[in-house]
Amino acid sequence: MKKYSTLSGIELKELYTAEDLKDFSESEKLGKPGEFPYTRGVYPNMYRGRQWTMRQFAGFATPEATNQRFHYLIEHGQTGLSVAFHFPTLMGYDSDSPRARGEVGVCGVAVDTLQDMEILFDKIPLDQVTTSMTINPPASVLLCMYIAVAEKQGVPYEKIGGTIQNDILKEYIAQHSYIFPPDPSMRLIVDSIEFCSQKLPKFNPISISGYHIREAGSTAAQELAFTIADGIAYVQACIDRGLDVDDFAPRLSFFWDIHNDFFEEIAKLRAARRMWAHIMRDRFKAKNSASYRMRFHCQTAGVSLTAQQPYNNIARVAIQALAGVLGGTQSLHTNSFDETLALPSDESVRIALRTQQIIAHESKVSNTVDPLAGSYFVESLTNTLEEQAGEYIRKIDEMGGMVEAVKQGFPMQEIAEASANFQQAVESGEEKIVGVNDFILEEEAPPEILKIDHSVEKKQIANLEKVRQERDSQAVQQSLKRLREVANSQTNLMPIILEAVKTYASVGEIMGVLREEWGEYQDPCII
Amino acid sequence: MKKYSTLSGIELKELYTAEDLKDFSESEKLGKPGEFPYTRGVYPNMYRGRQWTMRQFAGFATPEATNQRFHYLIEHGQTGLSVAFHFPTLMGYDSDSPRARGEVGVCGVAVDTLQDMEILFDKIPLDQVTTSMTINPPASVLLCMYIAVAEKQGVPYEKIGGTIQNDILKEYIAQHSYIFPPDPSMRLIVDSIEFCSQKLPKFNPISISGYHIREAGSTAAQELAFTIADGIAYVQACIDRGLDVDDFAPRLSFFWDIHNDFFEEIAKLRAARRMWAHIMRDRFKAKNSASYRMRFHCQTAGVSLTAQQPYNNIARVAIQALAGVLGGTQSLHTNSFDETLALPSDESVRIALRTQQIIAHESKVSNTVDPLAGSYFVESLTNTLEEQAGEYIRKIDEMGGMVEAVKQGFPMQEIAEASANFQQAVESGEEKIVGVNDFILEEEAPPEILKIDHSVEKKQIANLEKVRQERDSQAVQQSLKRLREVANSQTNLMPIILEAVKTYASVGEIMGVLREEWGEYQDPCII
Repeated sequence: MKKYSTLSGIELKELYTAEDLKDFSESEKLGKPGEFPYTRGVYPNMYRGRQWTMRQFAGFATPEATNQRFHYLIEHGQTGLSVAFHFPTLMGYDSDSPRARGEVGVCGVAVDTLQDMEILFDKIPLDQVTTSMTINPPASVLLCMYIAVAEKQGVPYEKIGGTIQNDILKEYIAQHSYIFPPDPSMRLIVDSIEFCSQKLPKFNPISISGYHIREAGSTAAQELAFTIADGIAYVQACIDRGLDVDDFAPRLSFFWDIHNDFFEEIAKLRAARRMWAHIMRDRFKAKNSASYRMRFHCQTAGVSLTAQQPYNNIARVAIQALAGVLGGTQSLHTNSFDETLALPSDESVRIALRTQQIIAHESKVSNTVDPLAGSYFVESLTNTLEEQAGEYIRKIDEMGGMVEAVKQGFPMQEIAEASANFQQAVESGEEKIVGVNDFILEEEAPPEILKIDHSVEKKQIANLEKVRQERDSQAVQQSLKRLREVANSQTNLMPIILEAVKTYASVGEIMGVLREEWGEYQDPCII
Repeated sequence: MKKYSTLSGIELKELYTAEDLKDFSESEKLGKPGEFPYTRGVYPNMYRGRQWTMRQFAGFATPEATNQRFHYLIEHGQTGLSVAFHFPTLMGYDSDSPRARGEVGVCGVAVDTLQDMEILFDKIPLDQVTTSMTINPPASVLLCMYIAVAEKQGVPYEKIGGTIQNDILKEYIAQHSYIFPPDPSMRLIVDSIEFCSQKLPKFNPISISGYHIREAGSTAAQELAFTIADGIAYVQACIDRGLDVDDFAPRLSFFWDIHNDFFEEIAKLRAARRMWAHIMRDRFKAKNSASYRMRFHCQTAGVSLTAQQPYNNIARVAIQALAGVLGGTQSLHTNSFDETLALPSDESVRIALRTQQIIAHESKVSNTVDPLAGSYFVESLTNTLEEQAGEYIRKIDEMGGMVEAVKQGFPMQEIAEASANFQQAVESGEEKIVGVNDFILEEEAPPEILKIDHSVEKKQIANLEKVRQERDSQAVQQSLKRLREVANSQTNLMPIILEAVKTYASVGEIMGVLREEWGEYQDPCII
């Protein structure tokens, strides 16, 4: 007999009826939107009050090229920016490092010094956009560069809005772009959260990310559990530092993957809000209701896109994006149909953005709040995901929290198992992927894709050399020396990083000092 | 203050809660799927038992070309055929008629005689596919040709499955492809329903169509009301003929448009089933539960596609198709993204079909029955649509039924008003259409489109002449003479039409006889 389950393997009944919700308390499980436990959304009138932010992740080649793409997206109606950095920046190397060879500007924009950041945001007033930056170990450095650009534009700190990803735990778990061992990594994050809570009231100092956990092959329940457990670890670390939970918790933000299973994804987002509200109130005793509210960004599932028959991806992305909106996301990236083949072209990013605009203006789904509430099936599935994720969180608590669980490799093993199960289902044909293991075409004509010019590397390195010659190298050396001292103290690192970036010290130089002082981490699972 | 409403103008509350369903009886309003009143679906296990039929409407140029497209679609996983005929066939003219000039094979396939139908279904075993034929005044003629092809293939009558549209009332209301006045038109339909109820147990002799009503600019409630009122008129006419309602009602089928408003369309389909079940049981006293079940086909809204930035249509169609499936459709046509520009290309029809396959296999929405049941909002909206449509049906009853209402031009006026309101909202910018009145591109490169070769007309006319020379013209004349006699009698026309098509009498010849006997209808609204 065929098994009917969600994409993550939750077995489904043929029929859900009122009987399935007979113990369901609307006031306890749902409440009103904007009220505890926030299942129905973080704001009372949701999209009537404020559209979700259409935020397309973009970055390639030089800062000049990405600046042009940003202007293109803003002209076409995008409402927030999102920067993809190239791999060397993500790993804390400069473009002229031997580790950067062949990678400059390939998967994102090259940023070495403050000058690149100035070009990246040229003619983009930072008091009028919010910017998300996907970066982790060097997150503090890039945030400081962003602050420095805002200062030069005359934008006061309290008007700087946006998010840095800055979520190192999911790097150990899934994405593997870490540099330092867990303890100094956590310290750097607490430093930035503390700094932002004092200086940048509109900035989200972390985006606690399930996206990469899911993309690595986890189930929806694992994505939910591990991400929330990461959140618990960050909150605990900030409290251990002596911060008051209500001083920083309102600015924590989250980031979810939106995979193919329409209802499972909606239920996941609703369960996530309810779980977080309970954790903040009951576990961490937060008093400010803003601390209970889980605000998040969503991105459609990159892993679900197929290189085969790529235009089919437009349909996949539309359905996934609809689930994100029905789940009450605050901002959304829709993948471009050609992303499995190359960096997206102007045309493909426009179609992806248009998909969001069609959902916003034509589908009418945002005219009433949380339209699926009360559905026998959706509420049951929301409960099931909450239970499954809660079980994982209890296990991680028993291990001593997520930092310990990571050191033991626990989440990695769980994800590897889930991922292997899925691969097996695809190989057996039980799980059908249209165009991949069924509905295949013999011959396909590939679409036109964006190509990165190989002169980018040369140009970026020449720029970096010029900055190095022109800057005040004594000031750079002094700031790096001071950085080294602070790295070995209990003092918050953010002010000295900000000072260093303003001298045009590079990402590689700043991260290099910390590398020398803190060492690099080796994954215990790989050894 | 901004007004929040459905696409059809139903005002929406900011929030729906359990309070909105406090008088809601699950057993009375929903029941179980496969049980009265069928709100949750016509079968107990819905798509677990049987996938919806993926039925792409196709037809262009010669019967040979369309036969190739059919084979292409079957190879790519389509599960049912759907024939688009060219305009001359739809209006009962042959390809060599002066009325056909410039139209041969342009908007559908040219079919003049049984020989064309033989070519159209060449190497397609009619006991293994079901075929839908979109045709109205000449529906009986094309059905008889289909029967004759099946006979030649050795397929017994009881294995012939499919649907003819055969819904003349919506032609007067919206689509304007009528020939005869209402009374003989209704007689022809009753003849075919009677014939099918006796001879073709698996064939749906009518597809009572809201699609064209909606495409003409009606609201969702009007589409619901006028279509169901058309259904009532057909049932009444069959009962007036002396048929037992349970002998024909189980084979009546319906056809709905799936427009942009995601939840309004889902609610419409759920309301439609509930309304029809009540009408068949309470008004027509049907005893067989199969008579209560409203089975239907859906097509995504052609009118919602934009010529501007046509790839955006893939996203629109995906969202609309998802609504059709969540509404419990039995079969589905997804529009191709280039349909506003030309007849769809092989690539564009494949993408449209793949969209259905992605919904079927990747989105998992069909793993449980009627997943939205119980939603405070969806159930409220279902109730509202039922009430609004019920109000219209009461009005039409007071006018003496739909045939009378059509003669008075009532539904036409209501639609014209709704359509004008919508146009005004588009022109004022209150209603945003992505790429049309907002999010516009200055310059667009059109996609490659399918072009119809102008040699089609010549070739088709030459074929027709050859058939005319080769057939037994005495047999043709005799059958047409007999047709004329039966047209003026009370006898069912189907057997004589079947006899005539087997002599290779053409569509134009058969319809010509009926034109002479019955006259042509003039729209009272146009005079």
